[in-house]
Amino acid sequence: MQKFSKLLCNTLKEVPNDAVIPSHQLMLRSGLVQKSGSGLYNLLPLGLRVIQKVENIIREELNKVGCQEINMSVVTPSELWKESFRWDELGDLMLKFTDRSGRESCVSPTNEEAVVDLFRKQVNSYKSLPLTLYQINTKFRDEIRPRFGLMRCREFVMKDAYSFHENKLCLDKTYDQIHSAYESIFKKMGLDFMVVEADAGAMGGSDSKTHEFQVIANSGEDEVVISKEANYAANIEKAMTQRQPLDFDESLDNLTEVSTPNQKTMEELSVFLNKPLHHLLKSLIYISVKGEKRDLVQVVLLGDDNLNEIKLKNHLSVDEIYPATDSELEKSGLVKGFIGPKGTPIKCFVDKSVSATSAYVVGANKQGCHFLNFIPDRDGKMSPVDLRLAKEGDLVNGATVSIKRGIEVGHIFQLGDKYTKLMSATILNSEGKSVAPLMGCYGIGVGRTAAAAIEQSHDEKGIIWPKAIAPYHISIIIAAKNNPEINQLAEDIATECEALGLECIIDDRDVGIGFKFNDYELIGFPSAIVLGKKWINDKEIEVKMRRSGETLTLTRDTISDRLLELIK
Amino acid sequence: MQKFSKLLCNTLKEVPNDAVIPSHQLMLRSGLVQKSGSGLYNLLPLGLRVIQKVENIIREELNKVGCQEINMSVVTPSELWKESFRWDELGDLMLKFTDRSGRESCVSPTNEEAVVDLFRKQVNSYKSLPLTLYQINTKFRDEIRPRFGLMRCREFVMKDAYSFHENKLCLDKTYDQIHSAYESIFKKMGLDFMVVEADAGAMGGSDSKTHEFQVIANSGEDEVVISKEANYAANIEKAMTQRQPLDFDESLDNLTEVSTPNQKTMEELSVFLNKPLHHLLKSLIYISVKGEKRDLVQVVLLGDDNLNEIKLKNHLSVDEIYPATDSELEKSGLVKGFIGPKGTPIKCFVDKSVSATSAYVVGANKQGCHFLNFIPDRDGKMSPVDLRLAKEGDLVNGATVSIKRGIEVGHIFQLGDKYTKLMSATILNSEGKSVAPLMGCYGIGVGRTAAAAIEQSHDEKGIIWPKAIAPYHISIIIAAKNNPEINQLAEDIATECEALGLECIIDDRDVGIGFKFNDYELIGFPSAIVLGKKWINDKEIEVKMRRSGETLTLTRDTISDRLLELIK
Repeated sequence: MQKFSKLLCNTLKEVPNDAVIPSHQLMLRSGLVQKSGSGLYNLLPLGLRVIQKVENIIREELNKVGCQEINMSVVTPSELWKESFRWDELGDLMLKFTDRSGRESCVSPTNEEAVVDLFRKQVNSYKSLPLTLYQINTKFRDEIRPRFGLMRCREFVMKDAYSFHENKLCLDKTYDQIHSAYESIFKKMGLDFMVVEADAGAMGGSDSKTHEFQVIANSGEDEVVISKEANYAANIEKAMTQRQPLDFDESLDNLTEVSTPNQKTMEELSVFLNKPLHHLLKSLIYISVKGEKRDLVQVVLLGDDNLNEIKLKNHLSVDEIYPATDSELEKSGLVKGFIGPKGTPIKCFVDKSVSATSAYVVGANKQGCHFLNFIPDRDGKMSPVDLRLAKEGDLVNGATVSIKRGIEVGHIFQLGDKYTKLMSATILNSEGKSVAPLMGCYGIGVGRTAAAAIEQSHDEKGIIWPKAIAPYHISIIIAAKNNPEINQLAEDIATECEALGLECIIDDRDVGIGFKFNDYELIGFPSAIVLGKKWINDKEIEVKMRRSGETLTLTRDTISDRLLELIK
Repeated sequence: MQKFSKLLCNTLKEVPNDAVIPSHQLMLRSGLVQKSGSGLYNLLPLGLRVIQKVENIIREELNKVGCQEINMSVVTPSELWKESFRWDELGDLMLKFTDRSGRESCVSPTNEEAVVDLFRKQVNSYKSLPLTLYQINTKFRDEIRPRFGLMRCREFVMKDAYSFHENKLCLDKTYDQIHSAYESIFKKMGLDFMVVEADAGAMGGSDSKTHEFQVIANSGEDEVVISKEANYAANIEKAMTQRQPLDFDESLDNLTEVSTPNQKTMEELSVFLNKPLHHLLKSLIYISVKGEKRDLVQVVLLGDDNLNEIKLKNHLSVDEIYPATDSELEKSGLVKGFIGPKGTPIKCFVDKSVSATSAYVVGANKQGCHFLNFIPDRDGKMSPVDLRLAKEGDLVNGATVSIKRGIEVGHIFQLGDKYTKLMSATILNSEGKSVAPLMGCYGIGVGRTAAAAIEQSHDEKGIIWPKAIAPYHISIIIAAKNNPEINQLAEDIATECEALGLECIIDDRDVGIGFKFNDYELIGFPSAIVLGKKWINDKEIEVKMRRSGETLTLTRDTISDRLLELIK
């Protein structure tokens, strides 16, 4: 048992200046972590206990499905990264340095290259496969704007796993096993999470799977499209939903120019022309970048839809896309606010939700003018592609979706043979042929998971820890001064509870009872035992449950067993 | 239980090229570690198991004496290191870099500064003291010549602890507690070690204690002076021993020049003049460096003694000393091979073992010449100081010492207020006065401890692990092909043994029995169970003990209990 008076833990009443989201504020306020530099954190004793519990749950579940724990050096030589071209690709995100012997290295931001190097030095036959290696180790990403405490810091602890396979069937099998192990991990931690389809980009090939594990929380940076009815969940970046059926304008009138002197936004235009937004088409101009090549691209969407940039980027198979700047528009002779698909010289894609045979309002590529009755099939030259961003109320397999915010705590990914090919890692397959093995990679942000647990489970008083990752389960609050009987009672109860696996901290600090209560609620231990007047007068013990807020009165002889039931 | 066929572990017959010492060779050959770059190592599954066991033993014992585990960021900002002047002092050993925002940081080589910063932000009263914080974390030292595998690598895992105190009494108490905890740690790991007095340098003040924990091994880089009789052990750098009583030349003849044309070494001179070495004095010229200042220093020792450079450096209180180069000697007008104390213009120190009133042969500061009958008190001007290096046969408290080689695996140190003063960390003491707290620091090299265990305990066949840190306790060798009864038996025995806390690995690989035996001996599991003919024919089970080399025959019903007794 731990005495609070001996613990390095100073709680704060004030919300620290630069902490915006609840988990960051509460981790600092409850003395779990301390900032040591920009995007750098020290884990204080209580914080480390949480992190170690998270790590141990991960270990346990991964070991169960045959993953093997290793530990790769945090510093990795540039040669490996150059084989995969990521030494340059990862750019400033990578913390590079030159050592005293002039060798270039980095503090690893991830370890695909290192693990492929490890693999190619150790394994040469399909007989050793499948092989899944994982580590729980320090990583560094030199984020431009580190923020949100452990949620987006520069130095962080990550569980990264990598699997190797002779063929896709084998990869799929391991992938599914780890998918299940991840579900067990987050379930064990007591988190409310979703597994969502994510965007695979061009990496693993068209049949490569990738899923994110998203903890549901209002402060989440990700949007997730879900339908329980359709058993569907996808990151909004990836979600392929349909719009609800729409009434389009089916008139076949001729294209007509109309003066719209000051109507530059869809909303202004809709009001001015008295037409619903989905009778208007929105034109966006993007710049696509591939290597040295830059191209203009035009995208046409229903007036009330938005572009999913990831879909556009994937469709174009380019390195990067970004909205054209005003000066780029001008240079290309485009008139901002009045751009349209009619006679456009730019390669133009139209979202599939746009009906090819219905009439729309579009920009006339002329200052102050739009066209009425633009019918794509008749008046334009556009390739239809799925480009829109999913939104609340869309349909998927006939069911309506809603959108929730999530925090990505895990990501699993079929990498295919990208890295093994680039790094010439081969094995002899069962037919005696030398092939590049397929890979999967599987990450969990350890500190981020702890932070996400707080985002999901807190109130205005503080954190509400799930039992599995609480720093201690019970705070035994001494609510009587210099009372040897109470002090002894606290130790006896603690000993009893610990024998049942309930970790206790005895709050024996020389501070007021209110202070102790506040700290119990702020730090968020699942329960508190109060030893004071009630015991002295009536031999009763007051117990508080943090999540429900309930107060119970228990008796001495049953207290530990009852607590075991109560703290789930 | 682990199946060997599923384990990433490829043993090597050949000794890898650059591995010189046994632990390095054996760790590579037995598939515990893999080199990932210069001074960088990946821990493979078996290696990580050993390391985690070492770490857990450390945790357990430190927690017992009230140390609190934390985890500080591996990357630390330059500002902290500049407060202690170590940003410059540590020089190239420190891996420095500038991040994308132009901030200077380093991959921490140690964490005194970081922990003082943590402390000053958290603690302000003597009431929170004593406080001992520790972490088990990655460190980086950019060694010029990384070597010996985990023994001297660049990236390494270290347990570093730091304690804070109001006064020396409190520091001493914690120091002694951690001293005891360290003894328990290394005892638990099954290591043969010595606790030796080490050199404190100028750091902690004259009454500051420091001890090293040295694992006894022939390949050790350190020399330790010990006498069981006198209950004495000290690093040779620190050892203050006396010479056995010597017969000196008590004649009082006049100083006489003698021609010694080619006699430049003590040995040559001793033969030429037919005098024992201790009737000759050796003069050494050193350069001492303090800041920008460089001075010549002359040191005079008995002809068969050697200088302890640490003693000289400490006596002079300088930053550095080194033997003068030939050109430095020449520049100062000194004649190499014939230097002596007579009329020397250089500040001259004589070792205390030299008798002030006896006659010696000394260099005449003249090509091809020595003096006979140099009597220090009569003919020289030298300050007597303890400067000699201890050697086998010396005396300490009347007892004879011997010298053993050791590997430093732990070091505990009273730092005093050096860092708290430099970094303005203060507390209010019990009298309400603001004071700089005293500190202790306590390190254990985690990987180095594992390597030292191998140095101490191996034979020509491989490693011999002590039980407490063996990757598994028992290798169950399947010595029959495709025999379902044997396979089942292996699993049954493994299940039984694991219930008793004995970890088993079933060697089910599709390789010859000889190969399996060799691997068992190479990796060094404490014992092996052989399941083959003996079982099939006689229902007997052969058990091998790695350390003793014994082979026993056990019966099915008692095997797990007997193994529990046998593996200690």
